[in-house]
Amino acid sequence: MSKRKRFMLPETEIPTQWYNITAEMKNKPLPMINPQTKEELKAEDLFPLFAEELSRQEVNQTDTWIDIPDEVRDKYKIYRPTPLVRATELEKALDTPAHIYFKNESVSPVGSHKLNSALPQAYYNKVDGTTNITTETGAGQWGTALAFAAKAFGLELAVYMVKISYEQKPYRRSLMQTWGAQVIASPSMSTKAGRKIITDHPNYQGSLGTAISEAIELAMQTENCKYALGSVLNHVSLHQTIIGLEAEKQMEMADEYPDIVIGCFGGGSNFSGISFPFMRHNFTGEKKTRFVAAEPASCPKLTKGEFKYDFGDETGYTPLIPMFTLGHKFTPANIHAGGLRYHGAGSIVSQLLKDGYIEAVDIKQLDSFNAGVLFARTEGIVPAPESNHAIAAAINEALKAKEEGKKKVILFNLSGHGFVDMSAYDQFLAGDLTNHVVSDEDISKFLTEV
Amino acid sequence: MSKRKRFMLPETEIPTQWYNITAEMKNKPLPMINPQTKEELKAEDLFPLFAEELSRQEVNQTDTWIDIPDEVRDKYKIYRPTPLVRATELEKALDTPAHIYFKNESVSPVGSHKLNSALPQAYYNKVDGTTNITTETGAGQWGTALAFAAKAFGLELAVYMVKISYEQKPYRRSLMQTWGAQVIASPSMSTKAGRKIITDHPNYQGSLGTAISEAIELAMQTENCKYALGSVLNHVSLHQTIIGLEAEKQMEMADEYPDIVIGCFGGGSNFSGISFPFMRHNFTGEKKTRFVAAEPASCPKLTKGEFKYDFGDETGYTPLIPMFTLGHKFTPANIHAGGLRYHGAGSIVSQLLKDGYIEAVDIKQLDSFNAGVLFARTEGIVPAPESNHAIAAAINEALKAKEEGKKKVILFNLSGHGFVDMSAYDQFLAGDLTNHVVSDEDISKFLTEV
Repeated sequence: MSKRKRFMLPETEIPTQWYNITAEMKNKPLPMINPQTKEELKAEDLFPLFAEELSRQEVNQTDTWIDIPDEVRDKYKIYRPTPLVRATELEKALDTPAHIYFKNESVSPVGSHKLNSALPQAYYNKVDGTTNITTETGAGQWGTALAFAAKAFGLELAVYMVKISYEQKPYRRSLMQTWGAQVIASPSMSTKAGRKIITDHPNYQGSLGTAISEAIELAMQTENCKYALGSVLNHVSLHQTIIGLEAEKQMEMADEYPDIVIGCFGGGSNFSGISFPFMRHNFTGEKKTRFVAAEPASCPKLTKGEFKYDFGDETGYTPLIPMFTLGHKFTPANIHAGGLRYHGAGSIVSQLLKDGYIEAVDIKQLDSFNAGVLFARTEGIVPAPESNHAIAAAINEALKAKEEGKKKVILFNLSGHGFVDMSAYDQFLAGDLTNHVVSDEDISKFLTEV
Repeated sequence: MSKRKRFMLPETEIPTQWYNITAEMKNKPLPMINPQTKEELKAEDLFPLFAEELSRQEVNQTDTWIDIPDEVRDKYKIYRPTPLVRATELEKALDTPAHIYFKNESVSPVGSHKLNSALPQAYYNKVDGTTNITTETGAGQWGTALAFAAKAFGLELAVYMVKISYEQKPYRRSLMQTWGAQVIASPSMSTKAGRKIITDHPNYQGSLGTAISEAIELAMQTENCKYALGSVLNHVSLHQTIIGLEAEKQMEMADEYPDIVIGCFGGGSNFSGISFPFMRHNFTGEKKTRFVAAEPASCPKLTKGEFKYDFGDETGYTPLIPMFTLGHKFTPANIHAGGLRYHGAGSIVSQLLKDGYIEAVDIKQLDSFNAGVLFARTEGIVPAPESNHAIAAAINEALKAKEEGKKKVILFNLSGHGFVDMSAYDQFLAGDLTNHVVSDEDISKFLTEV
């Protein structure tokens, strides 16, 4: 009865360095390319857009470990180390021989893992003397995280929030405003990119791609202003490795090692965070852990996309990024997991998928909510719709283990809670949600436009 | 810069016993009385309404320590021990010599301290063979807690939710439904008590008092069904002492002892929980800690009510309880801190207030939200509107310490987070909230009706 439930690390065990997986990859991720000159991007090329240290981290393929500044580590103390939890009640409900663990990133004050990168991004901008930053947000999790981080380091923040989320998730907007940020529904009339898409498609509900275009444009036009991105980029994945680094120590406390590591997948930040620190033991051949990225069936870039150079945003303001993509003009269905509605995958994850280190599965919306409700009723926590994809994949693996009669150790990342997504659960419980699966035609159509 | 921020206890340090303060009080709280016979209530008299062990706990004035069942302690592991946090960033913003600590009960999966009593209440009902339970909820925090606890121990639950909250806080309703509970807006047509008040006052927005009447009536009419209450009663305060017992150990880790302990005050459950374990050292004369209950100016039973026997509910179904009260027909203004909209205080707290162990302050709604926003922007956590009252009182004490140039150690209970109360913050930030202060006439009017 009294199985140990939560594995907690003391404050002193907050990692002092992030893990830079690119330094240990045999096949390095391809570089980003300037769409005009077709030349490889260097750190300096990114300085107009990002803080200098973030730009350097973005292209750093040599240093395996990167120091976490004391000022950032001090802010991490607000919620880190986060708990590693054994999902004993879920195991019972599934009657599985599998041991299921989850890293609970939902305990951050903003409700998700996004704060792990928001804090260093705000900090490095502050160091550069930047006063204003801009960003985009899909479901609102990144925006809320950066809103608090900006306040914590004394920066002003403007957030372009994907219109459908702005309407579906008013509480996330209120959260950003409570922390002092300015929030604009995207597409908006405040940028050329926004005006163009509103003119072309008056009923357009917005997408991360468009919101990124708007945020970049505003940053470029504003004095002493930089841009910040919450996923996809290498420096974001780098910051998120703090999740897996803690989890590794905590799995040791539990005296186990994961056979399978699972994260939901939008741009790749939480998946990278939980996976990379464990993956380094696969590189050495010491371990054979499987890494499973759980993406929505409505936005299947990993399972059905193509590996090619593509823009990170809808308009084409970003450099060209080597990625698994559905095409930067692809507009995913309005599923509630707004954080997973992105057309491409970061360059590191894309390379690792290509090289066979990562598997991908696609999860239908109804299956994700079924998993989320079972999780809530057993483990107590109502998960974010995004996280439900990881839970569904973990349940599938646990049931497979049951069929095979094998004790597997499964670890997934609970990227966030669902307190501000309850309207989605309402619709699910009322039977009003549907699955959205993308047709092959749709995919080939948008891909040829790349 | 690197002050220690969070003080965490290991799972093994979850208390094994609750602290029953009545056993150590010089002046015992007066007994509850049967309104018909005018006789003192014994445990057996409560059996029709409550689980037997809960009824025994309710009248137990002899055992100082009461064992926590293993089954309950096992569920506590889902979120306990909760962190004790040094509010370093808030201290900086206030530029105060005071050290401010808060016990973070918002990390429970239901978002508040209410789960501390919901779990044992569900458990003891299960032990009795009860299959169905009923309850009421104001802001929804108790209802959500009991929804998960009922599911965790396999009970069916019906929740009468105060109508104004049902409408203002739809996410809390969704949470209860996600955990599997049935939720009914109160007043409803499903009970005699509800029908009567709807008939008399068609636009009545509901109150905790009315919802209690409805829940009791349904429990009395239903086979194998008991009732559960989330505050006011002695057994609820008993369960909540787990907050202060943990906090006491954590303050030791911080090498400090509180000069002032603060909790917001509705029926008294979270205030009792944080206070009682520290208060026992006042009883022995060993310590001279001040205990401050922070109530809303719109419902000032402690600062402006009278000590007398009164009903716990609007209709008069409960026993007569010795309490500081505004009269059981008193309907508080529709402030957003729904959990503090209750006319009376529990009998233990009432006795302690009478005996001078407790002080009370009243906080205006706008002051409470100002405090909450400052807390969010410094410590990151957006607090529940109820908790904002405790924060406001803590800030007042910290500013007083600054004026006096004294280092005071202040501890308050962060009873819950505000993720599902963002519409209240919206209104506050838009300048649409007002203060509600009760007039002396109103108070004397309702009191004479008792």
